[in-house]
Amino acid sequence: MADAPSTGTKPDPSRSQPQATSPQKGGSGAARSTRFETHPDRYRHWQLTFPVEHGGAVARLAMNVKEDGGGDYVLKLNSYDLGVDIELADALQRIRFEHPAVKALVITSGKDRIFSSGANIYMLGSSTHAFKVNFCKFTNETRLYLEEMSSETGIASVAALNGTASGGGYELALACDAIVLQDDGSSAVSLPEAPLLAVLPGTGGLTRLVDKRQVRRDLADVFSTLAEGVRGKRAVSWHLVDESPSRSQFDTAVKNRADALVATSKRKPHPPIALQPLEVTRREGGAEYKYVSLALDHAARTAALTVRAPTEPLPTTPDELAGAGSDAWILRAFRELDDALLDLRFNQPHIGVVALKTAGAPAAVLAVDHLLHTYGDDPLVRELTLFVRRVLKRLDLSAKTFFALVDPGSCFAGTLLELALAADRVYMLDADDGAVSLYTSRLNAGAYPMSNGLTRLGSRFLREPSRVSRVLEHAGPIDTKRAVEEGLVTFAPDDIDWEDEIRIAFEERASYSPDAMTGMEASLRFAGPETMETKIFGRLTAWQNWIFQRPNAVGQRGALTLYGSPERPEFDFRRT
Amino acid sequence: MADAPSTGTKPDPSRSQPQATSPQKGGSGAARSTRFETHPDRYRHWQLTFPVEHGGAVARLAMNVKEDGGGDYVLKLNSYDLGVDIELADALQRIRFEHPAVKALVITSGKDRIFSSGANIYMLGSSTHAFKVNFCKFTNETRLYLEEMSSETGIASVAALNGTASGGGYELALACDAIVLQDDGSSAVSLPEAPLLAVLPGTGGLTRLVDKRQVRRDLADVFSTLAEGVRGKRAVSWHLVDESPSRSQFDTAVKNRADALVATSKRKPHPPIALQPLEVTRREGGAEYKYVSLALDHAARTAALTVRAPTEPLPTTPDELAGAGSDAWILRAFRELDDALLDLRFNQPHIGVVALKTAGAPAAVLAVDHLLHTYGDDPLVRELTLFVRRVLKRLDLSAKTFFALVDPGSCFAGTLLELALAADRVYMLDADDGAVSLYTSRLNAGAYPMSNGLTRLGSRFLREPSRVSRVLEHAGPIDTKRAVEEGLVTFAPDDIDWEDEIRIAFEERASYSPDAMTGMEASLRFAGPETMETKIFGRLTAWQNWIFQRPNAVGQRGALTLYGSPERPEFDFRRT
Repeated sequence: MADAPSTGTKPDPSRSQPQATSPQKGGSGAARSTRFETHPDRYRHWQLTFPVEHGGAVARLAMNVKEDGGGDYVLKLNSYDLGVDIELADALQRIRFEHPAVKALVITSGKDRIFSSGANIYMLGSSTHAFKVNFCKFTNETRLYLEEMSSETGIASVAALNGTASGGGYELALACDAIVLQDDGSSAVSLPEAPLLAVLPGTGGLTRLVDKRQVRRDLADVFSTLAEGVRGKRAVSWHLVDESPSRSQFDTAVKNRADALVATSKRKPHPPIALQPLEVTRREGGAEYKYVSLALDHAARTAALTVRAPTEPLPTTPDELAGAGSDAWILRAFRELDDALLDLRFNQPHIGVVALKTAGAPAAVLAVDHLLHTYGDDPLVRELTLFVRRVLKRLDLSAKTFFALVDPGSCFAGTLLELALAADRVYMLDADDGAVSLYTSRLNAGAYPMSNGLTRLGSRFLREPSRVSRVLEHAGPIDTKRAVEEGLVTFAPDDIDWEDEIRIAFEERASYSPDAMTGMEASLRFAGPETMETKIFGRLTAWQNWIFQRPNAVGQRGALTLYGSPERPEFDFRRT
Repeated sequence: MADAPSTGTKPDPSRSQPQATSPQKGGSGAARSTRFETHPDRYRHWQLTFPVEHGGAVARLAMNVKEDGGGDYVLKLNSYDLGVDIELADALQRIRFEHPAVKALVITSGKDRIFSSGANIYMLGSSTHAFKVNFCKFTNETRLYLEEMSSETGIASVAALNGTASGGGYELALACDAIVLQDDGSSAVSLPEAPLLAVLPGTGGLTRLVDKRQVRRDLADVFSTLAEGVRGKRAVSWHLVDESPSRSQFDTAVKNRADALVATSKRKPHPPIALQPLEVTRREGGAEYKYVSLALDHAARTAALTVRAPTEPLPTTPDELAGAGSDAWILRAFRELDDALLDLRFNQPHIGVVALKTAGAPAAVLAVDHLLHTYGDDPLVRELTLFVRRVLKRLDLSAKTFFALVDPGSCFAGTLLELALAADRVYMLDADDGAVSLYTSRLNAGAYPMSNGLTRLGSRFLREPSRVSRVLEHAGPIDTKRAVEEGLVTFAPDDIDWEDEIRIAFEERASYSPDAMTGMEASLRFAGPETMETKIFGRLTAWQNWIFQRPNAVGQRGALTLYGSPERPEFDFRRT
């Protein structure tokens, strides 16, 4: 599935597949690229249908992984790789935008007696450490999107386990609102990673077990070390699943659950928005989208990521917004940004420091924000705002340093101001004629909470919460002097120093150990309260990072390395 | 500083020093043992005084590290190793028990122009991964004890930085309630670990920076990458320190702060309790204390840790309790348990699974609990309860599997029931004649919260909080049948199966990858809310574990390895 670098050509989206390759160990990632766009017409592993029995109110996603769809490994038993998960993420996005009548989701398997055996082990065993970590992060994001789709949009989900769900398969079920496991004497749920592979369940499983489902910790301990898993009534009594009907009762039980979710859904209809393919020109030196540019400096290990304000006439009502479809700036620009962030994560491992830039007319962005705020209760407006929220979270969670650069012509206004607030530092040119400004909008007050549940302004001013309202109440441009006073800016060099200071800051940052920067940023970005989400990314991910490189897992005699071979792993039994 | 194993002999506490050795890489830890007992008379690195100017209300701890006191490395510039921290932990404990008049603490340096340069880098560079991780955990516990001493006992602390505080030195200051930094043109605070050593500040520094002191995240980012640190007024304006008086004003400023803390302290006096040396007989196969036994099975990589109920006549009033001094069961048994846990952590790295056992008369423990509960407001009783709380937290945070074994003669009652509730699993013999029982006491209702702020019962029954009160309201013994019903027990084999089932459970557990077990247990033990404490242990520690074994830090060309040499580190710049 290697993908030759596409230079200066627009991809033909009707032919491209999501390329979820696992870079060979030691590979730079430059020769093979992972792409994240797909479409239901091209799904190889999932079937998205809308069963007539529910009159279109229920979407059904059936996993039926194509065994030879992965690459160098065989995707047996509905095991998955990144390509499978890219399709799932795409399906969730489309259900929200393209199928406004859907009020519940059933996730099941298209295979008999097996729901999913989780992430493919040979794929994991042959992947680089960085790929494994990024793969887990992406799958975790997708699981969280499933949960957010339930809590925010009112599309709750049922995991209809018509067979065994192991590892990541069970973790996918854990991300659903309800789990129905067929009681047929063999179908089980399990998290066999620790006993079989010497790694942790990598998609939030342990956290969801004790935090979301609140399984008793000792039962969770037994369950997480029981490779064969737990079946039927015991799975119900341990709260691992919600119901375990017999094979003959299974379909009815799932249907009843789905009906109940439809009946209590708070989802309100909006015009469908078809998500058109992104138009992007990729070069060795970056990528050019309509509103987003990614410029790579491979030698310096830095990049510049620019988001441009809208230039077309702007919709002024939700109807006009719907009419613009996926070309509406707010959707298109943030879909492009999302794609660029994933490109940076998966395909540009050597890039350490990213300049966040904006360009265009602040008034245009503020007009968009005005529309989104004024019609905040409109279902489509809400869906768009939630999408931007998810993309901004993806930015917070990307393991790259982000420095925002505010200079003449930049457009850090309202929604785009969030990019600066998400950055590790903000550099703003000290222009005393007011030539450089920041702008807030009402959307900075709560539309885009971070994973910790706080706004980016709230996270920034934990010590002095009064600063948040002071900044928000300030109407009109915030010039450099004022931005410094308000605490929005880290450094404000004047035009004599600007270039040198920025150059040195980027050079310095790019010279540090990337591991130390990743750990440091993960610790500094999320002060304040913790949520299940921050637990999954901050705590579980960190433990998994550690374990993913321990010789007991990935050494020559490690359990992950030897899985499937007749040889037994050898462990260094010293406890750390 | 290698310590020959002491076989069958009681140590002479008047001669022994804390042996804080850093095991050689690859060493089993068996040949060198770390011991945690010391006494102010034998401190080599700290001076504990009670300045007359405060009339005994202020304790002053001055760090003056003996350069040749560490072992193979030189402890320059008040850098510290485990031995230095063991003395600090001992001093804090003694201030609380032996010096009841103390209402504030000043931590300063006995050297001019340097407060502390943090953990000794050559010690870290020459230590095993497991030792580094355990060292960081112990120092974090000591910092948290400092904070708990302020919040719970009313002894707040001032870090009097009469010179530069770097890395762990500044982290120690962060654990104090107030930081006064001398403004002399050179003294600075800094966290240079990331830029200089490619590791994270390992003692909670990043978390305390943004969570405790709520330093703005971008300023925290700059600060944590600025090897030379921040001085004077800038340190104040970034909230890195609270005050930065000139050299001539420094002593007065510190004295004023200490006076103010004394004036607002809520501490109430109690009779002093001298902490007598522990009496312990150590053998290759374990250790024998008065109330605690540690039995090691090196071949099976398991251990049994037994705590025995009191046998002597019990105090019935706080006065009698004070009269018993450190021989009082509650203090002696838990000091012994604390010592055994540290022994397991540092000296028994190969032990993976620990059986938690108890023995003796439940009535005796319940009588102690009755006293502690009845006189809960008594300052000494409160101090004793807080001590038990800290030891139980040490148990929660130990990277070993704990299985509690409840069988005839066991004594899981009240305070000792917490051991079972802290265990990863509870095995209870199914004896239908009521021969085996658990007992609750009022102390299980809130005296011993975990790091997450919940009781162990509360953490166990997150899903069904009503179970907590049902268990607590149950007067008298809880037999096996009832214990199973109440959800207190994981497995209840009968006497035909007991031995086999326990053996197999221990064998299986000991056969798994110890890394996977550590990560799994850390995730399952602390469901529910997060606190600064769980953030430090769950999140920061995990990131540090990861980074501590990355080649960029500890590889042949890693920054930690090459520190102090003329060579520059070489990094693999791929971001993970």
